[in-house]
Amino acid sequence: MNKDVDFKPLFIGDKSENGSTYQKELRQLITSHFGWRKNYIPSDKAAISTDDMDKPEYQAALKRQHKVLTELDQKLRGGSVPWMSAGRYWGQMLSDTLTPAMLAYSDAMLWNANNVTIECSMATSQMEEEVSEDLIKLLGLKKGWAHLTHDGSVANLEGLWYMRQFKSMPLAFKEVVPDKVKGLSDWELMNMSVEQVLEILKSLTPDQIDAVKTHSSRSGKNINKLGKLIIPCTKHYSWLKALDITGVGLDQMVQIPVQDNYRMDINVLEDTIKKLAAEKTPILGVVAVVGTTEEGQVDEVDKIVQFRKEMEKQGVYFYLHVDAAYGGYARALFKDENDNFIDYDKLDEEFKKHDVFHYPVHISKQVYNSYKAIREADSVTIDPHKMGYVPYCAGGIAIKYQSMRNVISYFAPYVFEKKTASAPDMLGSYIIGGSTGGATAASVWAAHRTLPLNITGYGRLIGASIETAQRFHKFLENLSFEVNGKTVKAYPLDNPDFNMVDWTLKVEGEDSLAKTNELNEKVFNLASFFKSDVYTNRFLTSHTIFAKDTYGDSPIKFIEKMGYTKEDWDKVGSVTLLRAAIMTPFINDDKLFKEYTDGIAASMKEKLAEIL
Amino acid sequence: MNKDVDFKPLFIGDKSENGSTYQKELRQLITSHFGWRKNYIPSDKAAISTDDMDKPEYQAALKRQHKVLTELDQKLRGGSVPWMSAGRYWGQMLSDTLTPAMLAYSDAMLWNANNVTIECSMATSQMEEEVSEDLIKLLGLKKGWAHLTHDGSVANLEGLWYMRQFKSMPLAFKEVVPDKVKGLSDWELMNMSVEQVLEILKSLTPDQIDAVKTHSSRSGKNINKLGKLIIPCTKHYSWLKALDITGVGLDQMVQIPVQDNYRMDINVLEDTIKKLAAEKTPILGVVAVVGTTEEGQVDEVDKIVQFRKEMEKQGVYFYLHVDAAYGGYARALFKDENDNFIDYDKLDEEFKKHDVFHYPVHISKQVYNSYKAIREADSVTIDPHKMGYVPYCAGGIAIKYQSMRNVISYFAPYVFEKKTASAPDMLGSYIIGGSTGGATAASVWAAHRTLPLNITGYGRLIGASIETAQRFHKFLENLSFEVNGKTVKAYPLDNPDFNMVDWTLKVEGEDSLAKTNELNEKVFNLASFFKSDVYTNRFLTSHTIFAKDTYGDSPIKFIEKMGYTKEDWDKVGSVTLLRAAIMTPFINDDKLFKEYTDGIAASMKEKLAEIL
Repeated sequence: MNKDVDFKPLFIGDKSENGSTYQKELRQLITSHFGWRKNYIPSDKAAISTDDMDKPEYQAALKRQHKVLTELDQKLRGGSVPWMSAGRYWGQMLSDTLTPAMLAYSDAMLWNANNVTIECSMATSQMEEEVSEDLIKLLGLKKGWAHLTHDGSVANLEGLWYMRQFKSMPLAFKEVVPDKVKGLSDWELMNMSVEQVLEILKSLTPDQIDAVKTHSSRSGKNINKLGKLIIPCTKHYSWLKALDITGVGLDQMVQIPVQDNYRMDINVLEDTIKKLAAEKTPILGVVAVVGTTEEGQVDEVDKIVQFRKEMEKQGVYFYLHVDAAYGGYARALFKDENDNFIDYDKLDEEFKKHDVFHYPVHISKQVYNSYKAIREADSVTIDPHKMGYVPYCAGGIAIKYQSMRNVISYFAPYVFEKKTASAPDMLGSYIIGGSTGGATAASVWAAHRTLPLNITGYGRLIGASIETAQRFHKFLENLSFEVNGKTVKAYPLDNPDFNMVDWTLKVEGEDSLAKTNELNEKVFNLASFFKSDVYTNRFLTSHTIFAKDTYGDSPIKFIEKMGYTKEDWDKVGSVTLLRAAIMTPFINDDKLFKEYTDGIAASMKEKLAEIL
Repeated sequence: MNKDVDFKPLFIGDKSENGSTYQKELRQLITSHFGWRKNYIPSDKAAISTDDMDKPEYQAALKRQHKVLTELDQKLRGGSVPWMSAGRYWGQMLSDTLTPAMLAYSDAMLWNANNVTIECSMATSQMEEEVSEDLIKLLGLKKGWAHLTHDGSVANLEGLWYMRQFKSMPLAFKEVVPDKVKGLSDWELMNMSVEQVLEILKSLTPDQIDAVKTHSSRSGKNINKLGKLIIPCTKHYSWLKALDITGVGLDQMVQIPVQDNYRMDINVLEDTIKKLAAEKTPILGVVAVVGTTEEGQVDEVDKIVQFRKEMEKQGVYFYLHVDAAYGGYARALFKDENDNFIDYDKLDEEFKKHDVFHYPVHISKQVYNSYKAIREADSVTIDPHKMGYVPYCAGGIAIKYQSMRNVISYFAPYVFEKKTASAPDMLGSYIIGGSTGGATAASVWAAHRTLPLNITGYGRLIGASIETAQRFHKFLENLSFEVNGKTVKAYPLDNPDFNMVDWTLKVEGEDSLAKTNELNEKVFNLASFFKSDVYTNRFLTSHTIFAKDTYGDSPIKFIEKMGYTKEDWDKVGSVTLLRAAIMTPFINDDKLFKEYTDGIAASMKEKLAEIL
């Protein structure tokens, strides 16, 4: 029996193909909710009488509401990006989202649960626990725990909070329970692993644990002794905010350059860590990115994990956070229908069996290895509202061991007297946020229940987006125009690790990189809301700039391909690219892809004609 | 012409009285959205063909979705708290929410905007700007700015982030632009006001501003020099998290006891600040709470503001954050139909004119003055998902001057080259979060447009909840039962400042405070999901515990009223109360109130009979 889930029925569709199903399901859910209200203590009289309803002020308020909603509709209509198009929007991380998620949200919102404490949200807190199980299984963190966050930025902030807390615990042990760390040097204390810290905590009494936490970095002490946070230069800017907000400080940031494939340069990373260790500077942690925001690239997590093991033997330890906000869900591509991680040499066979690709897609061994190694991370950011195809705002974070959460937890003073002191009963105690919408949990839960987090479900969906990215990449490689007597060629970056494609357009013979940058900026303007009515625009995209102060010299190889030199790079110091996060699930099909790319080429040419 | 807006039509209603209107409006909005999809480049063929739809796997996926949604419905039905009841749920901050907010959310979610950058959300970013204008007008922060947050905890964290940044700026000035603070002592630097810091920033070049920011507390430096955060013991526990997360540290927290009315003891606050100033310990900031989480009380903001002015003359300055997450929207009660703040002696007249109360409600001069003085705060937490009657998650923060946000801002390196560097164009640069749902903005926007943030709209709605709280308080004052030969009496706390009522039940002659605490814990268990099926339960509530380590001796007066002594307090150290955040908008009417309270009394009596 084929367990593969067809994902096209699970979107409203570029032309509202599933609109009537959506309306029907929504009507049923809402009608059912209304019944729940009516039947709660059926003998209670309705608080709003039909007499009330007849009053002019009652009718006036309804009219007022209708007017506001009409205005809302008009504003959304005129001011929204048509990302639902199967093949005309090639820009930001926006896409059609899964109907089960939206239907569940629209329904669960009516029950207005607050997952902060289970007292307010018996059903939806349980759903968030199930989502947690889904996510840790997806990531391979068997003993872990996960919860939903506002977004990836907050998840990253929480990740850094974990790091800071864990790194400071040994210093607190030394003060509060010195016997537990007897004989350890300060350097050894600064290199205790998450596992070692948890092991000691297990041996302490509740009062001792409280005392240790009081002496941890939450006191405000020792934060400047915890060492460096090492991140690739392609990190999301939320990491800057996180360093700032946690008080660790931007001074503690060490940025690692990327290779010319825009993955963190593992050699530089290793050298940096060795150098820091040699001078006895502690390493607070390392962040690896799985799906960089501007390039969609995947850092070599397996190599970092391997290197960490080697360094541990030498007494050097660092916390590893994987920022897979964007790329995390793609791990489903590598999990078979029984949720086992597929062997690399069986991948193609499994892809075929589950009809994942309709085009020769190659997943490199390196990308595969990186995804596999995520299970070794101490914490992972993974956002349902990105490749989970769930509407905003639904971010998420997973930790390697459930017990890790006890290191950051807080309780209202009276909680200890209750039997309800653990998540999900008291979720607010274990997270940055307080109030958390039950509807968000219901939304992610419904998406996960409908589309399994393996090759039969999300794997196929995300596969479609990767396939389209590879098709689009190929299309760009062969793209050139004759415009007003000039030849314009497209230059895509090398093969993308994931579903993002960046490229430039360049007039043949244009020897100024600055002018080429200007051209691409202008194309972007014409392909976005800045200079056009997006609703009639036949090709929409986003853009990015690789600047020298962030990217170092990694873009040189690329600009050389465009015909520029290192001297141009040194002079101009940046390259402007067009950028497409390709999320459309709809055009993994030769015919449709051709139709749309013909249209795109025509539209790009028009824009170029307007500029040149 | 009467501009008052009737709010009852704007809720689905305890018995789904407005259910059919809700369905109708929703259907219209969604149908309209579908039309938008269909009409975008009408010549583009639909990506999902009718042939696709006929396939068995297509139908199987739809069936799968339906099954999941049916399960969702069943789970929500069995595991949700019936807070929409007009008068049987007297517990947590849960209530029916405004239909314009829910309808707007359900609609705007389909357009999946991300307010992080206007490129993704032209319409909804503009709505968030309008919400900002609404909130700063409501709070009286004329030159301010506001944005939506995940919730109040994150807003408080952002408030502390602002404080920390501002307090550290003068030290950064001294390092980077010493001329600007020439002649100022370290103590003077640590007592520069927000206004003074902004003034200096105005005189700097962009490069200087960047350099100053780099040397501010975001670097990680000087955080331990910034002094003490002063908060009342009734603060929300998110302040502990915020102190922890920001690296300021819990060691810097100074808790001020409350008076026996559970408002921060202003005398102790003043003495504490004077003492700290005398020993030259800087004061990072003061937090005042408007609507405490456990008691609903309102700190005396006006007195704090007055005291701050006096201290400023003596060269002592502190940042003031008002945590009005819960109580903030009630400021609408004091704003006339032209949004002017009403004189205290005109209040009753205005209440009458706008038919706010149907019961003799008294708003004390002190509470009035506190609300008025919010306009003097440097930042304010205010959550639409609490007294804004908007569904979770929609928190909010407002700052006194828009330009304050430049002190915490971040930009992607390339942003400076664009014309789009200010909010709402780049909202993510100015807030803790990154991705922010456009649907949330649409939801709050629609609520505000339908129900004005003054006495004609939200004022009347929140007035209804305050009135019900005062009715309920009175009801409890006179409540006693004869149960199994024992007399049980209710003891409410003194008059609530807002719409929360706490009380205890006590068996006459019971001389053990511990046993009375047990009784109330048991009543709570029977009035919550812990020991009962909430859906058939005729009285539901929440509870809290005032413990000595947090509340000091403030509860003594209350337990004395119950017949206990200071000795009992010293021995037991806590008192367990039942607690009702009274949000129901439906029973500001004698008859209905009596019907429900008769029912509640009967249900409480049953519970007591089961326990005693």
